[in-house]
Amino acid sequence: MRLCVLGAGAVGSAVVELAAEHGHVVTAFADSESAVVDADGIDADAVLAKKQEDGVVGEADPEAVFDADYDVLVEATPTTLGDAEPGFSHVERALADDRDVVLANKGPVAERYADVRALEAESEGTVRFGATVGGALPILSTIEDVGPSRVSAVYGVLNGTANFVLSRMAAEGLDYEHVLAEAQDLGVAEADPTFDVDGTDTALKGVIVANVLSEGETEFTLDDADVEGIQELSGSMLDLAQEDGQTIRLIVEVADGAVRVGPRLVPGHGAVAPSGTENAVQIEADYCGRLGITGQGAGGPETASAVLTDVERLAD
Amino acid sequence: MRLCVLGAGAVGSAVVELAAEHGHVVTAFADSESAVVDADGIDADAVLAKKQEDGVVGEADPEAVFDADYDVLVEATPTTLGDAEPGFSHVERALADDRDVVLANKGPVAERYADVRALEAESEGTVRFGATVGGALPILSTIEDVGPSRVSAVYGVLNGTANFVLSRMAAEGLDYEHVLAEAQDLGVAEADPTFDVDGTDTALKGVIVANVLSEGETEFTLDDADVEGIQELSGSMLDLAQEDGQTIRLIVEVADGAVRVGPRLVPGHGAVAPSGTENAVQIEADYCGRLGITGQGAGGPETASAVLTDVERLAD
Repeated sequence: MRLCVLGAGAVGSAVVELAAEHGHVVTAFADSESAVVDADGIDADAVLAKKQEDGVVGEADPEAVFDADYDVLVEATPTTLGDAEPGFSHVERALADDRDVVLANKGPVAERYADVRALEAESEGTVRFGATVGGALPILSTIEDVGPSRVSAVYGVLNGTANFVLSRMAAEGLDYEHVLAEAQDLGVAEADPTFDVDGTDTALKGVIVANVLSEGETEFTLDDADVEGIQELSGSMLDLAQEDGQTIRLIVEVADGAVRVGPRLVPGHGAVAPSGTENAVQIEADYCGRLGITGQGAGGPETASAVLTDVERLAD
Repeated sequence: MRLCVLGAGAVGSAVVELAAEHGHVVTAFADSESAVVDADGIDADAVLAKKQEDGVVGEADPEAVFDADYDVLVEATPTTLGDAEPGFSHVERALADDRDVVLANKGPVAERYADVRALEAESEGTVRFGATVGGALPILSTIEDVGPSRVSAVYGVLNGTANFVLSRMAAEGLDYEHVLAEAQDLGVAEADPTFDVDGTDTALKGVIVANVLSEGETEFTLDDADVEGIQELSGSMLDLAQEDGQTIRLIVEVADGAVRVGPRLVPGHGAVAPSGTENAVQIEADYCGRLGITGQGAGGPETASAVLTDVERLAD
C-alpha cells in the first residue's frame, strides 16, 4: 500500500522507518511545517535524518501531501481534545478522496466518533484505529473478533507513565512528586505529564473502547468519562495497600455504558497490576470468559507496528 | 454463512448452539455415527436434545453431510495423531469442493500441516484454525496480525488441566496422584488425562504455532517436539520452588525452530504462572516487545467462540 504519513513524532517516524519492511511505500510524509512527496517512495533514512538535523522533513508545503498518490492516510499527529483538529480535518479530506485512514491520533475517534463514522459511511475508504488503544496490544482487534455486542466489560491499565509512577511509589515507598521527577529523568514521563497522570490519556482510550462497544448507539466523548488522576496519592496510601497484599493502579473501566478512570485498589500480583510501564487489560465477553492482554502499550515502534497491522488488514 | 459441523462433542455442540446468534446457519451436523441435514438450517435445540437422549444427532448417514449445501466445514472431531484421520479426510473433501474449513481439531495442522496447505493451495477454500491453540485466546490471530516472520518466540502455558494440577499441588502441598484424582472428580481432568499431563496436548499446540511461524519453510509434527510431562513431579519439588518465590508450570516454548515442552521453574506471580485452569502465553515480536495473553484456553463455548471468530473472518 502507498502510505501518506502525517506527523513526524515517535510514531509517524517509526511508521516511515518500518513501512518498507512491511511491504509498503511511503509516498508522502509531513510534519506541521513541511512535507516531502515522492510517488516512487520517499527515502526514509534521508528524510528522518533531515528531520533530526533541520527540524523539518522536507521543502514542500504540508498541504502538498493531500495531492500525493496514496492509498492509506496514517494520521499520527498529536491527540487534541474538543474538535480534535487538525487530525479530524485530515481524516475528512482523506475519506472525501475515498482513501483509507489509519489513526494513531486518538482525538478523532475519542472526541468525534460519530462524525468520523458518518464521513466513513459516505466514503469508499475505511477507518481503522487499533493503535489508539494500547499500541501493539491486540485490544480493539480482539473486541472486533469477539464481536462488540458480546463484550460486557473492558478494564485495566492503559497508561504506562502512570503505571510506572505507581509501581515505583509502591516499590520504594516514595511520594508522587519524587517518583515523577525520576520518571521524567528516565524519559518515561514527558516534561508535561499532565494527561498521563490526571487520567485524560487513559480516559480517551476508554472512550474509544466505549464507542466501539456501543456500535453507534451512543456516542462517547471525554466529557462522558468520570476521571480522577493519581496526583493526590501519597506513598503511605500505597504502603497501606501493600500490607493487605494489594496495590493501587490507575484503572479504566468501560462497562454498562459508562467510562470510569481513577486510582483503584487491586490485588498486588493480579491481572491488572502490571509493573513498570506495562499496560494490562481484561476483556470480559460472553462465551470467552475473561481474556487478559498485557504488553508495552506505547512507544514509537510498538505503536507503528499496530498502525502497520491496521494497514495490513486494509490490504486484505 | 452456512456451516457443516462435524463432531458432536463439547465444541461441535456449542458451535451448533451459538451459530444462529452469530448470524450463521447450520445446514449439516454429524457425529461419528449419524447426521442431520437441512438446507434451511437444522433445529439446534431439538438436535442437541436428541443427541443427549438417544446418543445420535439424527437419522442420516454421516456421509450425507458432504452433499449438503454449506460454505464452511467446521471440523470438531477429536484430535488424532499420525495421519490425523478422519479429520484430515474431512478437510480434504471440503477443500476439494472449494469450501472453507475451520478447525477445532488440532490433528490436521499439527501432524499434516504441509498436506493441508498443499490442498488449500489447489482449492478456492481457505483453512483457519485459531481455535486449535488456546481456544478463545487471540494467539494465532495476534501472530497473524504482527506477521509470523517478526515473531521470535512464543511460550507459556497452553493446557488448563496440567496447570490446574500444578496450581493445586503448589497451593496444598499435595502430591500429583492426589490432585489428579481431585481434578477428575471436578471434571477438570478427563477420565484418561494422559495427553494433558504427559505434555502431548501442549506440544500439539506448540507444533501448530511452529508451523505458522515457519511459514512453510519447515514442517513440524509431534515427532519434532521435545516433550516431558508432569507425572513425575512431587509436591516437595513445588514446595522447594515456592521457598524461592518460584513455582513450576508445564511450559511450551516455540523458538529458534524448535518446540520444547516440559515442567519449568517460573516466577511465582509471573506472566506464565496462571492459576487454576487458565492459560497464559507470551509472544515476543520485533517492535512489539512481549505481548501477554491470558484466559480460559479450553471449554466448549470458549472454543466454539473462537471457531465462530474464524468463520467471521472468512465471511469478511
